[in-house]
Amino acid sequence: MERGVRELWAESRELLGLHSPDAVARADLPPTPLAFLRDHVSPGRPLLVSAAATRHWPAASLWPTESYLPDALRSTDVSVHLTPDGRADALAPHPRRPGASCFASAHVRRVGFPAAVRLIRGSDPAAGLVAYAQQQDDCLRGEYAAVARDVDAHVPWASEALGCLPEAVNLWIGNSCSVTSFHKDHYDNIYAVLSGEKHFLLLPPTEHHRLHVRDYPAARYVPVEEGEEVPKLRLEMEEPERVVPWSSVDPYPASPEEMAAQVSSCPLYFKGPRPIRCTVRAGEILYLPSMWFHHVSQSPGPNGLTIAVNYWYDMQFDIKYAYFNFLRSLEIKDSPLENNDDAFEGELEEKNE
Amino acid sequence: MERGVRELWAESRELLGLHSPDAVARADLPPTPLAFLRDHVSPGRPLLVSAAATRHWPAASLWPTESYLPDALRSTDVSVHLTPDGRADALAPHPRRPGASCFASAHVRRVGFPAAVRLIRGSDPAAGLVAYAQQQDDCLRGEYAAVARDVDAHVPWASEALGCLPEAVNLWIGNSCSVTSFHKDHYDNIYAVLSGEKHFLLLPPTEHHRLHVRDYPAARYVPVEEGEEVPKLRLEMEEPERVVPWSSVDPYPASPEEMAAQVSSCPLYFKGPRPIRCTVRAGEILYLPSMWFHHVSQSPGPNGLTIAVNYWYDMQFDIKYAYFNFLRSLEIKDSPLENNDDAFEGELEEKNE
Repeated sequence: MERGVRELWAESRELLGLHSPDAVARADLPPTPLAFLRDHVSPGRPLLVSAAATRHWPAASLWPTESYLPDALRSTDVSVHLTPDGRADALAPHPRRPGASCFASAHVRRVGFPAAVRLIRGSDPAAGLVAYAQQQDDCLRGEYAAVARDVDAHVPWASEALGCLPEAVNLWIGNSCSVTSFHKDHYDNIYAVLSGEKHFLLLPPTEHHRLHVRDYPAARYVPVEEGEEVPKLRLEMEEPERVVPWSSVDPYPASPEEMAAQVSSCPLYFKGPRPIRCTVRAGEILYLPSMWFHHVSQSPGPNGLTIAVNYWYDMQFDIKYAYFNFLRSLEIKDSPLENNDDAFEGELEEKNE
Repeated sequence: MERGVRELWAESRELLGLHSPDAVARADLPPTPLAFLRDHVSPGRPLLVSAAATRHWPAASLWPTESYLPDALRSTDVSVHLTPDGRADALAPHPRRPGASCFASAHVRRVGFPAAVRLIRGSDPAAGLVAYAQQQDDCLRGEYAAVARDVDAHVPWASEALGCLPEAVNLWIGNSCSVTSFHKDHYDNIYAVLSGEKHFLLLPPTEHHRLHVRDYPAARYVPVEEGEEVPKLRLEMEEPERVVPWSSVDPYPASPEEMAAQVSSCPLYFKGPRPIRCTVRAGEILYLPSMWFHHVSQSPGPNGLTIAVNYWYDMQFDIKYAYFNFLRSLEIKDSPLENNDDAFEGELEEKNE
């Protein structure tokens, strides 16, 4: 079966036209709904659309500026996610069990938008505090309603293709200190960058086993002392214990030692084909098909911020989903396979920043 | 893994909305290209469209008559497929190895169309000769070009959805003596019945293992003597030997003894969920997604003939196809599984005729 799974990886990439790790399809203009559905949604194939897709959005010119958003939102409270290292919803060392990991959620704080921007700009892992505005609860139409009309309420070619309006529209404001760990969403995702760049590492759903999803106990960051404007955080295990299945892969280990540990812990990731890489620049839109695994890092724009809006559309639960669940039900040996022509073990991925 | 495969069968049927064996979706009017693509092609879900779909075709009123086609094609030679029992491209007893089977192809003969109709109407398995005009080589636009304009050259909502014109358009003329054994096609199939009814048994691609595909040596029917207008046929093994992988399932065994042998030989078919049943009546169109297994029997119309036209569109080889190939690469035990709530072993399927 291991050989069959590896052939599945190769064949699905080939059929999706992902012959090289930089082969995400690009379009100069937004696709027609029919072409988008036929060539991308139905086969599950990502698409990067040029900045022509958002040129008519006021946000395209206003949001990359220094002052527009802080002015427009000066009396708005927003949720900012605080971690010591920029890794919210990610694995972290278990606070009580040396060598073990837990799944750490951010400390979420409601602050005025100008204060949130100060926290984000002041993010410093060395000082133990990174802020990221990434409330994923339809926040553009909630907390950020005052600026929601700077972008299209939905993406017409996607809505018409998918036959529905977005279930959620989220705003993301951070900088290079924040990283989103490998995960998948049960949504078709239209991801528009407005300031700076987002760097995606992508794996198709067929490569599920390469994520080495394991169960981790949940924890959350909490302030050591209440009431500080710039809090110091500590990690607290959730009580009662809650278990979260999460990818064990860190594609950018910080040192050769950590890389060696990662290769040992996640051999199918590091000894398989390279992840697909895709950088989404300001104005561009990435269509990320549902169930694709993605890891996201970012570079700031001229205003020191990476700003993005994403539209989550309900996915179609169809025969692809049934196949995925079947694949996931299969246990395959973690040990690497013969013929690792694609392995990139030991090569530290160069981060795009 | 056996349990996982059985869950895949159940989940894919549930996600496709195939809650009962008669649950093929029906539409009173042809779908829009977008809805067809989104709700049927992309998820791989069959659709039966009412006779409104073909009401504007001259063939809808002309072809079911006694005389129109014989008149229009009176000086046309066509290919007619002859077998002793109406089973072309199907398993038959091996002529030299008792108890073994081979894959038998028809004897194809070019005759004038009026003679072809006489052969089809005169089909009689008891007398050892059944004729079926089923040349699957784009024959409507080839041999039958004289009447091709009685139907649409393509199916506009399908062509627009799929982004291409049909690769082949085939005409099928037979009667209840002819049956097409379980198989799949690498095409999206738009199947329009013009006279009589076609009775489909369908299994989604996820149920591949239930077909019990095994290798059979190829054989062909040949006339015992050359030159007879109504030939007697014998089965001749192909030389050099050619092996054809084919489904071992006969869903309609002729006797309780043959049913017992089938259940023993094909336990995953007979001890799994019932096949989906769909009868396509004159004027109706069935969309049969690519890679779906189908078995077809037929009932004649008022002119004594079952007449159909099908449009084969190139399928999209995408992630679903990669998943299918992976599934097919897995060997699962033939032995029946526990919890056979769905099994219909021993119940002889009632033929829809």
